[in-house]
Amino acid sequence: MADEVVLLDFWPSMFGMRVRIALAEKGIKYQYKEEDLRHKSELLLKMNPVHKQIPLLIHNGKPVCESLIIVQYIDEVWNHKSPLLPSDPYQRAHARFWADFVDRKVYGVGRKLWATKGEEQEAAKKEFLEIYKTLESELGEKPYFGGETFGFVDLSFVTFYSWFYVYENFGKFSMEAEFPQIVAWVKRCMQKESIANTLPDQKKIYEFVLKLKKIFGLE
Amino acid sequence: MADEVVLLDFWPSMFGMRVRIALAEKGIKYQYKEEDLRHKSELLLKMNPVHKQIPLLIHNGKPVCESLIIVQYIDEVWNHKSPLLPSDPYQRAHARFWADFVDRKVYGVGRKLWATKGEEQEAAKKEFLEIYKTLESELGEKPYFGGETFGFVDLSFVTFYSWFYVYENFGKFSMEAEFPQIVAWVKRCMQKESIANTLPDQKKIYEFVLKLKKIFGLE
Repeated sequence: MADEVVLLDFWPSMFGMRVRIALAEKGIKYQYKEEDLRHKSELLLKMNPVHKQIPLLIHNGKPVCESLIIVQYIDEVWNHKSPLLPSDPYQRAHARFWADFVDRKVYGVGRKLWATKGEEQEAAKKEFLEIYKTLESELGEKPYFGGETFGFVDLSFVTFYSWFYVYENFGKFSMEAEFPQIVAWVKRCMQKESIANTLPDQKKIYEFVLKLKKIFGLE
Repeated sequence: MADEVVLLDFWPSMFGMRVRIALAEKGIKYQYKEEDLRHKSELLLKMNPVHKQIPLLIHNGKPVCESLIIVQYIDEVWNHKSPLLPSDPYQRAHARFWADFVDRKVYGVGRKLWATKGEEQEAAKKEFLEIYKTLESELGEKPYFGGETFGFVDLSFVTFYSWFYVYENFGKFSMEAEFPQIVAWVKRCMQKESIANTLPDQKKIYEFVLKLKKIFGLE
């Protein structure tokens, strides 16, 4: 029986993009279903009743939720090519640690940059710069977070690149000036088809954020 | 060379207890070092400079941080006995999902129960009951969250049992009356030496919380 793979997703989601990149890396054919997050589908509510969130992968009728858990699942099921997690347990723990760091730190502070004003925004900017500095120091001189090859941490973090223009515009700083090594790393990643074809245009994300701010009354 | 295993921990920590149970399940000898969280050791700050948190496992000089990541590491390195994660990728994803649910939901709401008052505490109680109801429904009629045998989700959640007396006292409800299946499951888990020997006495945790409230001026 051929695998039936369905992805419920929302195009600007950094979490959804992770799954799209993982599927592309593994060369898996799947059906993409765009969700309207203000009117979630019956399928999403039924398949992820606990969190009701995208991305949601449905593999042969069975749901897998939470982007990093989905990516590990994909890596374990389709293990014939493009390994994402290292095989060594210590390196795996290290990769999980940094992917978890990205999950806990990078999304929230980026959101605060565009969704807040004044002092709160200034505090967010300071925090943002610290978090990215920590990530840049972890990257160091390596070509990828995973070392010589693209891996789990790279995949978890690179999807935020599509939001860099938003961060720069609202935070009033240049990513390239502040984090030259991260920007060089991002450009290296973007040479991969799986990433270049997945990440939406930064200006499109910026327009999306302007619309969001209108909807939320954040102008 | 024999493995050198050191655990930096703090006795009332549900996260630390997870690691202690995993090490006991695997029969690993280790050195336990109690941390004073108001005066963290040089070793902790050096080995976990990003989060500066316990539990921290040091295996042959190399640090592993974050309780669920440590438990997975232990399960992968000492894979000769007592497997904690299932071998099937779908069951693994399922276990990771529920352990992540416990991490994200159970700790914070429990803290609010004893650290807040009035309306905020009432809201926390409502949320607490909902979260535990979700967990009870996931447990269902199974002997363990892992099915027939004790596993990753059981280990992630059972350590909160040592805090049940605190939750009951500040939330003014009976765990046994509200969640009979969870209490029956906890009693089943407590028949395991690795758990019974690890979990501190509930009254001792209660006294610890009373002291904490004094320190934080929360009386």
